[in-house]
Amino acid sequence: MSDIIERVAWPNLTVAEDLKKLRAAVPLTHCITNIVATNFTANILLAIGASPAMVVAAEEAGDFASVAQGLLINVGTITRYDREAMLIAAESAHKAKTPWVLDPVAAGPLAYRTEIVYELIKFKPNVIRGNASEIIAVAGATGNAKGPDSTAGSDEALPYAKELALKTGSVVAVSGETDYITDGEKIAAVPGGHILMTKTTGTGCALGAVIAAFLAVAETDFQAAVNGSVTYAETGLRAAKEARGSGSFAVRFLDHLSLIGKEY
Amino acid sequence: MSDIIERVAWPNLTVAEDLKKLRAAVPLTHCITNIVATNFTANILLAIGASPAMVVAAEEAGDFASVAQGLLINVGTITRYDREAMLIAAESAHKAKTPWVLDPVAAGPLAYRTEIVYELIKFKPNVIRGNASEIIAVAGATGNAKGPDSTAGSDEALPYAKELALKTGSVVAVSGETDYITDGEKIAAVPGGHILMTKTTGTGCALGAVIAAFLAVAETDFQAAVNGSVTYAETGLRAAKEARGSGSFAVRFLDHLSLIGKEY
Amino acid sequence: MSDIIERVAWPNLTVAEDLKKLRAAVPLTHCITNIVATNFTANILLAIGASPAMVVAAEEAGDFASVAQGLLINVGTITRYDREAMLIAAESAHKAKTPWVLDPVAAGPLAYRTEIVYELIKFKPNVIRGNASEIIAVAGATGNAKGPDSTAGSDEALPYAKELALKTGSVVAVSGETDYITDGEKIAAVPGGHILMTKTTGTGCALGAVIAAFLAVAETDFQAAVNGSVTYAETGLRAAKEARGSGSFAVRFLDHLSLIGKEY
Repeated sequence: MSDIIERVAWPNLTVAEDLKKLRAAVPLTHCITNIVATNFTANILLAIGASPAMVVAAEEAGDFASVAQGLLINVGTITRYDREAMLIAAESAHKAKTPWVLDPVAAGPLAYRTEIVYELIKFKPNVIRGNASEIIAVAGATGNAKGPDSTAGSDEALPYAKELALKTGSVVAVSGETDYITDGEKIAAVPGGHILMTKTTGTGCALGAVIAAFLAVAETDFQAAVNGSVTYAETGLRAAKEARGSGSFAVRFLDHLSLIGKEY
Repeated sequence: MSDIIERVAWPNLTVAEDLKKLRAAVPLTHCITNIVATNFTANILLAIGASPAMVVAAEEAGDFASVAQGLLINVGTITRYDREAMLIAAESAHKAKTPWVLDPVAAGPLAYRTEIVYELIKFKPNVIRGNASEIIAVAGATGNAKGPDSTAGSDEALPYAKELALKTGSVVAVSGETDYITDGEKIAAVPGGHILMTKTTGTGCALGAVIAAFLAVAETDFQAAVNGSVTYAETGLRAAKEARGSGSFAVRFLDHLSLIGKEY
Repeated sequence: MSDIIERVAWPNLTVAEDLKKLRAAVPLTHCITNIVATNFTANILLAIGASPAMVVAAEEAGDFASVAQGLLINVGTITRYDREAMLIAAESAHKAKTPWVLDPVAAGPLAYRTEIVYELIKFKPNVIRGNASEIIAVAGATGNAKGPDSTAGSDEALPYAKELALKTGSVVAVSGETDYITDGEKIAAVPGGHILMTKTTGTGCALGAVIAAFLAVAETDFQAAVNGSVTYAETGLRAAKEARGSGSFAVRFLDHLSLIGKEY
């Protein structure tokens, strides 16, 4: 029996309504992310209408994760000091029922962080978001990625995403030319986006934060991930139309993210 | 007896002259700030005409603070390792009479950093700059902020700012729809600015660095803080006129900061 | 006998061909750089066509440096924790013959990092890139710089650059109004660039990463450094023509870096 895959793209009423809810709620979104993407992630959250808080110290991350409305943990530049804060935050979010997103950047080729990713998964992330190579690796297969860029297509990752979702209970979101979101049963395919999104560092990382913000307002974790992907894909298309290269693309992406959905 | 509040806005001759002096002096401005705002703060300092130096190691921060012409300490993403460097830098600045600015980001709701803020205040910052919630919290009242964004208006913070200034001997600058600067006696109110300034991460943090640069050239600490607020408010207005969203706003803000005052 | 200095500027066939090779190879470029420049460096590498990977943990940096195609180590905001990762990465790159670039930011006035720079040099960087004050300081003379900005002209640094190249076996690249590249014998002078490059933080730091990416494809280390400087200088000129200040300059710089050479 083959999978039933629902195609979701902008304009979509549920996404637009959740976007309105997000902007009304201004969810406090706690991020412990990598040093490359920290600034861009905060700006992305502000543009979409959330309130970012990058609280990274082990002394503070636990308390904060329990009061935040969404949490992102991204292991992109994890050190042993970050590991401590991430585990405390994940445990606290789990206990306080703060919904959270795990982004296993470059899991697979790098053994140290791959182990930490498995430690983090014990605290039941609501969503695991990554590129194809990362999702394949976290699902337990041997990826062949060398660094943070994927060497596999998102189509190839789909069976691994389903398996990972069933095993962990997390919604799994695979970013790529088409994004796939699955809870192990349902699958959504989100087309769109633009190659320039892969030429702007931190774009994928910041999507994790956007999904964390949507977790505060969406009906389901699955819908939160779909909302993030659909909003991103359409914003990418709009920004790319006005961009000459990756510099102007990033600027337009932030501009359009603050405007999208206001036509409703 | 009610307070006498002086309204200060661009164009203002003292501010314009201090801006000229700043550009002639190119003050070496030492910043130990958060990982979200580090890059933007350096670009803001370059745009206005200062020389930024982000020297963050405990091994270097003390020596450097003694030769710098201004210092900013911002606790936005403080870890225990940053704490060490910040205390060393603050003590060194105090001994060497390097003027310095303290930005108590998210003090109040986060106990760990609030304690460190009090430790830092012992080294007599020339200026304490924050949003309303932060200034209320540092003055000892119970703020109700959850994260780095203020939930109080700057008007509400004014009595706390005066109290804090009198208690510490620091000039206190409250950022908001109207900025207030006070040394406990005099009060300046700086109107202007733009809501997009709150949608660009690090804008407030970088204002602390701009004030630190002005401390190197202004007659008084009070005037340095006023210079920073007035320059910022006018730059924000100019940038907002040309912006479509937060992406283009940040770009225009840097452009206009490098141009403002050159008409004199 | 006076030096023979070859002037190299865009358009230049070797540079254009190496740029094509770089874009075909998409070299995995490992960067351990400062917290100010991390994001911009990744975006610069993506714009030129490389694959950036900011792997900074001591637990991961060694393994990663051995599989990367180029490595940049930049000591701009070095802490004792970074020191550990940098030494491991440099040793690993040296053993695995991964070509690497050392950027000794603010060496000289800051004793702590100056010592680390000498420790790193033992692992034979292929290229040492810095501004005039830094190169003079690393060559053993007493510079008079106070912070990361140079107080000397690149012309003054040229004899020190030659001496440093002969002593270490590294190619030495001095950035300034004219860039000089030398292996101790040959000298290339690269004119062009623009003053706005010094007003955008991290521009010089990211040049080190671009040279690291070129090391993966150029015939010689000397040519890799020349490629980086020439591409940068021309991109700076193109971006400056369309810029109103440092904000729009940075955006245009990324745009033009992704476009340069595609006319061939």
